[in-house]
Amino acid sequence: MLDRIDVAFLPAEAALFDAATFIVVDLFRATTNIATLFAAGVTRLTAAATIEDARALAAARRALLCGEVGGLAPAGFDLGNSPVEARTAAVAGREAVLFTTNGSRALCAVAGRGEVIAGAFANLTAVAEFVAAREGHVVLVCAGDAGGRRFSLDDCVGAGAFVRAFTALAPGAALGDAARLAARTSIDDARGSHHAGLLRDLGLGADVDFALLRDTSRAVPLVSSAGAGWAALKNASIG
Amino acid sequence: MLDRIDVAFLPAEAALFDAATFIVVDLFRATTNIATLFAAGVTRLTAAATIEDARALAAARRALLCGEVGGLAPAGFDLGNSPVEARTAAVAGREAVLFTTNGSRALCAVAGRGEVIAGAFANLTAVAEFVAAREGHVVLVCAGDAGGRRFSLDDCVGAGAFVRAFTALAPGAALGDAARLAARTSIDDARGSHHAGLLRDLGLGADVDFALLRDTSRAVPLVSSAGAGWAALKNASIG
Repeated sequence: MLDRIDVAFLPAEAALFDAATFIVVDLFRATTNIATLFAAGVTRLTAAATIEDARALAAARRALLCGEVGGLAPAGFDLGNSPVEARTAAVAGREAVLFTTNGSRALCAVAGRGEVIAGAFANLTAVAEFVAAREGHVVLVCAGDAGGRRFSLDDCVGAGAFVRAFTALAPGAALGDAARLAARTSIDDARGSHHAGLLRDLGLGADVDFALLRDTSRAVPLVSSAGAGWAALKNASIG
Repeated sequence: MLDRIDVAFLPAEAALFDAATFIVVDLFRATTNIATLFAAGVTRLTAAATIEDARALAAARRALLCGEVGGLAPAGFDLGNSPVEARTAAVAGREAVLFTTNGSRALCAVAGRGEVIAGAFANLTAVAEFVAAREGHVVLVCAGDAGGRRFSLDDCVGAGAFVRAFTALAPGAALGDAARLAARTSIDDARGSHHAGLLRDLGLGADVDFALLRDTSRAVPLVSSAGAGWAALKNASIG
């Protein structure tokens, strides 16, 4: 059973925790999008730390090139970072490469530190059940804003939902300072966050609403291999 | 009047804000101790980024050498980092040099970015009144744990008290994501924080209790000069 739950408000804090399992949360929108792409049939998704890495990886693997800079798909990308778009895109059986300002970088930063999973409200129950069967220490890693340098309330809300789920499944687990604070946040905090406002201003309010829906995906996107500037995820879900 | 209030959960986040005023909060115990040392009559206090800097500065200026490593005063120090001890120490008319694991480093990291003040519950009203007369943007900087690399709930609680005070004095000010979260914390969160537990284990529970008392000092410790590895503070209080 899990015995300790921590939250890293920024990816750099994750390096301070010697844990078996890390769940990266970029609620708006990368980890919601990853959960959705796997639910839509993507076979493998490689998160890239830079846009140059993403372009090179997608070309080498003949993969769909997905992601955003400033919230929108850069020129030449097949898809943006929109889970609403991903839900109905023709991606089944394809590989994908994803570059985003915060989420894909956070996955690359944490990859290799333990079992690393991409989590969001979209796959909350699937990931919580997968991880709650583990022993030891789990860390929720908020992707943050400004390339992972600034706190972002929406990611904290997503992390808090996992803290509450794990506390219900493993009532004896100890909570770190940030986990206690995150557990008290609500969907309304995510709706009122700085990041939600930016996305609405870009006309992407539907992605905000979608990211707050629970269990639209049964995917458990798990990092299966990683190198300098990339982390490849596969769906470890059995359901 | 203030128009924007942000909280940096870690000192490194402060670099992302282009603000006129920064208030560094290390509730347990550096900024509480600084407010208390000035109230006890210290004329100037130099925060040092490393223990070597602190020893050299204290020797050069014939200043009291104060601070902690692992919570306790290192060998050869005149005083620890205890506000309870500082309150009754014979420090009137003396200069002090302070090295602590988080707080003095945070002051050095932020010094030079704008007007930089050391704040805590101990001098909440004095600092809030001093800053509320300013125009523009104020950032509360949490000193954090592990040398400023990890979130510490006690500093967030102190920052939150300032957010509430400024919101009352400048009701139209916009709040950033972290400020909104910090404003909801309470004294009980600080009492239950990881850091409070560590201090109680060291027999320093009286410092925890003292740090949660409001307005035991009228000092406004303001950085007046700074260089590589040090920041010198004077009391800017008019009261």
